[in-house]
Amino acid sequence: MDRKKGRSKRLATRVTLKTIAEATGYSINTVSRALKNKKDISKESRRYIQETAQSLGYVTNAVASALRSGETGTIAVILGDISNPHFSIMVKEIEEAAHEHGYNIIVINTNEDVERERAAILSAMSKQVDGVILCPTQKSAKNLELMADTIPFVVIGRRFTDIETDYVIIDDCKAGNIATQHLIEMGHKRILFLNGPSYISSAVERYKGYLQALQDNDIPVHSELVREVPIQSGGCGDTVSKVIESQIEFSAILAFSDLLAWEAISALRQHGLSTPADIAVMGFDNIGARLLFPIQLTTVGTVEKKMSHVAVGVLMEKLQSTKDCDASAKRVVDVQVIKGETT
Amino acid sequence: MDRKKGRSKRLATRVTLKTIAEATGYSINTVSRALKNKKDISKESRRYIQETAQSLGYVTNAVASALRSGETGTIAVILGDISNPHFSIMVKEIEEAAHEHGYNIIVINTNEDVERERAAILSAMSKQVDGVILCPTQKSAKNLELMADTIPFVVIGRRFTDIETDYVIIDDCKAGNIATQHLIEMGHKRILFLNGPSYISSAVERYKGYLQALQDNDIPVHSELVREVPIQSGGCGDTVSKVIESQIEFSAILAFSDLLAWEAISALRQHGLSTPADIAVMGFDNIGARLLFPIQLTTVGTVEKKMSHVAVGVLMEKLQSTKDCDASAKRVVDVQVIKGETT
Repeated sequence: MDRKKGRSKRLATRVTLKTIAEATGYSINTVSRALKNKKDISKESRRYIQETAQSLGYVTNAVASALRSGETGTIAVILGDISNPHFSIMVKEIEEAAHEHGYNIIVINTNEDVERERAAILSAMSKQVDGVILCPTQKSAKNLELMADTIPFVVIGRRFTDIETDYVIIDDCKAGNIATQHLIEMGHKRILFLNGPSYISSAVERYKGYLQALQDNDIPVHSELVREVPIQSGGCGDTVSKVIESQIEFSAILAFSDLLAWEAISALRQHGLSTPADIAVMGFDNIGARLLFPIQLTTVGTVEKKMSHVAVGVLMEKLQSTKDCDASAKRVVDVQVIKGETT
Repeated sequence: MDRKKGRSKRLATRVTLKTIAEATGYSINTVSRALKNKKDISKESRRYIQETAQSLGYVTNAVASALRSGETGTIAVILGDISNPHFSIMVKEIEEAAHEHGYNIIVINTNEDVERERAAILSAMSKQVDGVILCPTQKSAKNLELMADTIPFVVIGRRFTDIETDYVIIDDCKAGNIATQHLIEMGHKRILFLNGPSYISSAVERYKGYLQALQDNDIPVHSELVREVPIQSGGCGDTVSKVIESQIEFSAILAFSDLLAWEAISALRQHGLSTPADIAVMGFDNIGARLLFPIQLTTVGTVEKKMSHVAVGVLMEKLQSTKDCDASAKRVVDVQVIKGETT
């Protein structure tokens, strides 16, 4: 593969103020002023020069100018699985909030892979973004060091306990607790928890909340009912099948995300089990607030503020701050159960 | 807002080869060779220099180097609504295919807005991406001119008939035709078509297919059964309600996308109508192939090749081509009906 060839062809078409001056018959100074839309150039001339510049592909110089100034007005959003509606909705919300502050966003997917996360961070930095909002894979904290002292960033959705970073998370412990409490109130005692991997903080904290709710209600903890599943789409169907085939008794499923909850309901159906009649199912994320599905899932969502909006707010403070950003921002967003039809 | 301040703080921490040489006690030449991982520097020295460089935040220079060489190995994917699973799945597929060719991707959302589309294209170009895959808003073709002769790009999902561009689309006319034909075979004659806006080529072409299928089956066309709806999430519930309240008779809905089909089913439910018992519903996109939902939607999807993969292939040809890319690539991907439970 030779990328240089494509690039050199592009460079060959580079258009300067001189090119436009020659093409239009105006002086370089007039061309420059017309392209800046200065009023001392007549409207007709401005228009003619601007149109000629555009037809010649002068935009490459706007690009060069953006590079020179280092002012891109862009935030990179780096996350694990863009095909999960939870993340794609979050991206849309971040974009809306960033746009209000005059920033554009670019999105980079890590596929929950630590090497791709590193590449994503380097790619964002090489693109001179002003800041980064990162949902880390948490397989290693090393990638965050790339950004330390170099580019303002906020971690979203997960947090590191061993290193110092700004973060915005939901109250995951409470989320796990109130979800389990809801299922207990609906009469369930054997709740299959399809949780995310234990290197992810939200999985660890939700598990704490799950345990607490069981203990508060004097319900014994059964380790065979707590399963770690991959969090990307397609991750939990097999586990549900295995648990059913092992004849492990359960009457409800608590899934790490709405995406996994949908998959769990699909897997239950394949075994002839309906929801909620046979097995109640609930998730986390409240994707139904933004995407209308015919079956309303019982889920846990934020109360007032969204993580996405808080994260943009924190990043904006960092970008606009005149002092050193040593004081770290740690925000925990409140959550509630949203009762749907699946419990 | 003052973005400069955040930027200047970053520049203050810039680390050069000289900084690393001073910190490690090696010569600038040795540092340079160690950072390039040259074998003539001992493994231990390389490692020490590389680790020191990283701890000093030397990545900023990798950034500077990427900017100087103009080699980013990045493709920008610009699309209308990242929160629609159809698009977010497409992004993930494009990323997988691009990754195989050694490219990363960045994603920019236009919100189906022509101004944001312009900003997205300029942003991508200012970030020196090697190529662009664009699903255009089609509200204007003017934004495409920004890229003409300047950066390799491929249009995906929609096509312009009045200007010359490379594109990859599904066979939208056939898609509309076989979808309608499927509903007719299921006994439906009054099919409510919730179509996209008429400036979008796929909407126009699917409508042609819809008309053709009705005509082929001697079924009269009723204009009150063809409705233009916004294609972003939340777009079609009101229309479904209005049609029901106007007591316009219909027994099936053909929606422009799976996203809208889900919304239509939700709207029907609010009127006490179930699917498929009362009203059959089908969509386009086959998002169920990648995201498991408990209800399998009848839909239209591609047969073998995915649009995303074909688009990456076309763009790679353009990036690697030594000759001028005047010969344009127009690819039409074949489609089929995927029968689910909603018809």
